[in-house]
Parts: sequence; C-alpha cells; structure tokens
Amino acid sequence: MTMRKADTVYLDGRYIRSADARISPDDRGFLFADGVYEVIRVYNGCLFEIGAHVERLRRSLREIRIPVSAADGIEGICSGLIERCGFTRAEATVYVQITRGVAPRGHAFPPDDTPPTVYASAAPIDEPPEACIEGVEVILVPDTRWARCDIKSTALLPNVLARQMAVDRGAREALFVRDGMITEGTASTFCAVSSGSLLTHPLGERILPSVTRGVVLRLCRELGIPTIERPVRVDGLSSIDEAMILSTTREVLPVTAIDGGAVGHGLPGPVTKRLQEGFAALIGAIRED
Amino acid sequence: MTMRKADTVYLDGRYIRSADARISPDDRGFLFADGVYEVIRVYNGCLFEIGAHVERLRRSLREIRIPVSAADGIEGICSGLIERCGFTRAEATVYVQITRGVAPRGHAFPPDDTPPTVYASAAPIDEPPEACIEGVEVILVPDTRWARCDIKSTALLPNVLARQMAVDRGAREALFVRDGMITEGTASTFCAVSSGSLLTHPLGERILPSVTRGVVLRLCRELGIPTIERPVRVDGLSSIDEAMILSTTREVLPVTAIDGGAVGHGLPGPVTKRLQEGFAALIGAIRED
Repeated sequence: MTMRKADTVYLDGRYIRSADARISPDDRGFLFADGVYEVIRVYNGCLFEIGAHVERLRRSLREIRIPVSAADGIEGICSGLIERCGFTRAEATVYVQITRGVAPRGHAFPPDDTPPTVYASAAPIDEPPEACIEGVEVILVPDTRWARCDIKSTALLPNVLARQMAVDRGAREALFVRDGMITEGTASTFCAVSSGSLLTHPLGERILPSVTRGVVLRLCRELGIPTIERPVRVDGLSSIDEAMILSTTREVLPVTAIDGGAVGHGLPGPVTKRLQEGFAALIGAIRED
Repeated sequence: MTMRKADTVYLDGRYIRSADARISPDDRGFLFADGVYEVIRVYNGCLFEIGAHVERLRRSLREIRIPVSAADGIEGICSGLIERCGFTRAEATVYVQITRGVAPRGHAFPPDDTPPTVYASAAPIDEPPEACIEGVEVILVPDTRWARCDIKSTALLPNVLARQMAVDRGAREALFVRDGMITEGTASTFCAVSSGSLLTHPLGERILPSVTRGVVLRLCRELGIPTIERPVRVDGLSSIDEAMILSTTREVLPVTAIDGGAVGHGLPGPVTKRLQEGFAALIGAIRED
C-alpha cells in the first residue's frame, strides 16, 4: 500500500506545503539511514494509541543514541498536522521520522549541538476493505535483517526487497524466517492460531514491539482467547488452524495462504474474526465520538 | 573523519550550488535507505580505480534491483564535478549515491518509470598523515549487520553505531566480529599478517568487495607477499604479527592495538610498511602526471 500525502507536512519546527519540503543531502537520514520513525493510525481525526507510539519512538531514539528530547511535543505536532491537513474527522495515517540531523559526512556522530531532523506527514487511508474479509496470501523469505529488529529504524532496505518479492509473487506480505522460525512481516506482526490459542513471537531483538500486537494481546485477554508468546516454526505450519498479520495500517488481516499452501481451511478463521470484531468495536467507539 | 564538502554538487542531471541541493522527504533514500553509494579517491584530480568503483556500483544496483542504467555516465559526472569544484590538481574524494527515487511511501518498489535519484559531491582530503606512520587502535564489536554486507547500501545505521563506540573508546575504527571471526571494519577492510603472509576475509556476502583490498592483493602479488583469503579468528589474534585496515580514503593504515592489546610489537610492521610504500609508489605515478 502506498500513501498519497496531504498537502501540508511538518519539518523542523514549521508546517509547510508538502511541495516545499526539502531535506539536505547531508541529512544523516539520507546518507546513513541514521534515524527512526513511527506510523500512527488516525481514526475520526484521533491519533490511535499515541502514547504507545511516542513511547516506542523515544525508546528507538534512546537505542540509537539520538537525544530522546527530539520526540518532545510529537503528539502536539501530529495533532497540529491533522488539523492543518483537514483530517479532524478523517481516516488517515501520520508518519513521523527523526534523524540525527545534517552534518558533513562521517560515520561517527556529529557534534552534540547538531539538531535532529524532525519530519511528519499525513495521508488519507484508502485500503480496500475486501482483504480484511477475504484474507491475503503471504510468502516466506529468509530474515536477512540486522540483529536489532526491535529498533524502528529507517534502515529498511531488506524489508523493501522482501516486500517486493511478495508483490512479484502476487502476495500481500513477506514473512521473515530466522533459524526455522517466523519472526514477523516486512511491516507487520505475524500471529497464528493453534488449538484455540493465539501464538506470536516473544518480544526481543528479533521483532519490533508492535503497537497493534499490544492491542491484540489486550483484546485476547478481554475475549478470553489464550495467548502463547513463542515463535511459529516453519516446519509446524501445517498444524496451525489460522494465521493473521497485524499492523497499524492494516489492523488484523487474515492470512489464508502461506507460500501457496492453504492455512487451515483457506478461509479467515473464527479467532481471527473475533479479533477483527473486537478491534472494530474498539475503533467504533472512537469513530462515534 | 568527516568531509567538508565543496561548493558544487551534482543532483539529478545538474551541477548546482551545494547550499541549493535538496532531497524530497519522499526520496526512498531518506524513507527506506533504498539506495547504494560509492566513495572514490581523487589523486591529483584523477579518479583512482574508477573502473572498479563503477563496476561495484553497477553490481550494488543490480543486487537491489535498481536499473543498472542509473550508473550510466557516472565517470563523466564525477570528472565534471572535480572540474567544477576546482579539484583538477587536488587530493579529494567524490561521493556518489543512487536511490530508487521519489515516490509516495510504500515498501514495494514504485512504478517502473520512477527515475532514480543520482547525487554526487566532492570534498578535499584532510587526513592527518601521522596515523599512517604511527598506526591506530581499533576495537572489536559484534557484527549486528544484515546478511548482505557485499552490497554497498546506505542502510549504515549499524556501522554508525559501531564507529561511534570506537570513538567513545578513543579508537579509530571498530571491527565487526561474526561467529568468532573478524569480518571487516565499519568502513574498511581488515588484514592481518601471520608468518609473512597477508590474511584477509574471503569475498562473499559477509564483506564488501573492497576496491582497496583488490589493489592491495595485486600489490602483494607484485611484491611477492603470499596472501591467504581466510577470516582471522578473534581467539587467534595473539598469534598475528601485524594488522592493518584498508579503505579508499585511508589507503593502508597500520593497526597497532586491538581492544587495548598490542598487535605484535605494537608498532607498524614490515609487511604493512612495504604495502604502504607500494601503494605510495602507485599513487606517486599519478601525482606526477
């Protein structure tokens, strides 16, 4: 899914026309992927789970040693953007990126007084809802990424290449496999259902601490669905009953086939549907506000 | 080492003032590290080993599936830049970066007709020569990078973090260690000398096919220094006689200490010096032209 951006963006302290937004080629985000980002879902103009996103952004900054204060005021920046984009009643996403700033090229950190670059943009959501009902196909690819997938950095080249492989094969998403276990998708969390329990990879350095994963685990508790935090093995895929991918933009998306093989009966399963309904109820309350 | 840039850069078909050069925040180089780069050494205005650099750039492009034609004319672009920067008799470096271009954010490749972004800048070299004579200290860090270190991509965040760790500890470079073996530095090739032979990691997906490595292996043949392409084990470091790091900007740099422990006698060794002299002779011919 690509995002058509709104006309206004935020860059380094100002709201400006999207067409006027320009980054220096000496920005460390451009030269070194030396930055982190967040994508936040907007329902009816409200920033969904903004607290969790800001907390994760601060964690990412800390892990790569950009001053955490760079994230100060981010919620207000995002709200201001939604307003200026005319999205106060809209379904949208807000993208936020913070880099280590602009400096002459050199691998080591620039001087301490180099201000981080703070960029935010918004885009309306235009996801076709059919996928949520019919489910999608995914493929498996080797997890070639670095050892710190818990940091939401912009060093996304392996994710780009894997996602394109999925597109080439007519699939919606690629799931990374490390040591025989599914870690996560290129931009999503993977969950399976086996004997009525939801299985998902434990947190750690191999996966992103997904905000939607947190919401779904909370929903499971509320709905009485048992959860087991352990990785799904590729050689155990034939025994799972359901599968789904979770993400900020796609919420709970049923996975009906993996590498061309049907998951369970090849249709969205009952646990997946209950979670979709639970998610919809959560959002329904926001939408009606 | 940071690079103070010249006043003129090349961007998407034009030579412009460095201060006017601006990248779109929708450039995939900024959003996804979806690009590759080269750093080329300029001696006396001449692009050193330009053929090898262009060939590697084309290989990097091919591996990440950006049309290789994006590198067409790169040598001319670099020569034009050197001329416009007034570097026709100078010691300098040229930096070239090619990204998958500007497109609305989405992991999969943008439409085929999206033109790649082509950017080049030049900077005078101001490396203090003492390090080449006295040698430098390096540290060892876990190789947390992705599985395709042979691609010279801009997804350099792990390299940035490792280099900063070296700086924090008063060292010049960090060497990555994977499975108990030294792969390479954050921006350099590692070589050791043991019983008169030069040891260096074999080519493959774990290291960059370094241009300077190629030059040094050629020099070894000419100078009658035996070479062995196998990784140096960390647990075998106490038995090596000499160590050095190679790079386009730093040429052959003696390593006199690793993680605080002296290499050999803690001074640049005889094989290192012979290679430095051989390298200097090679460049001397260019400088006298």
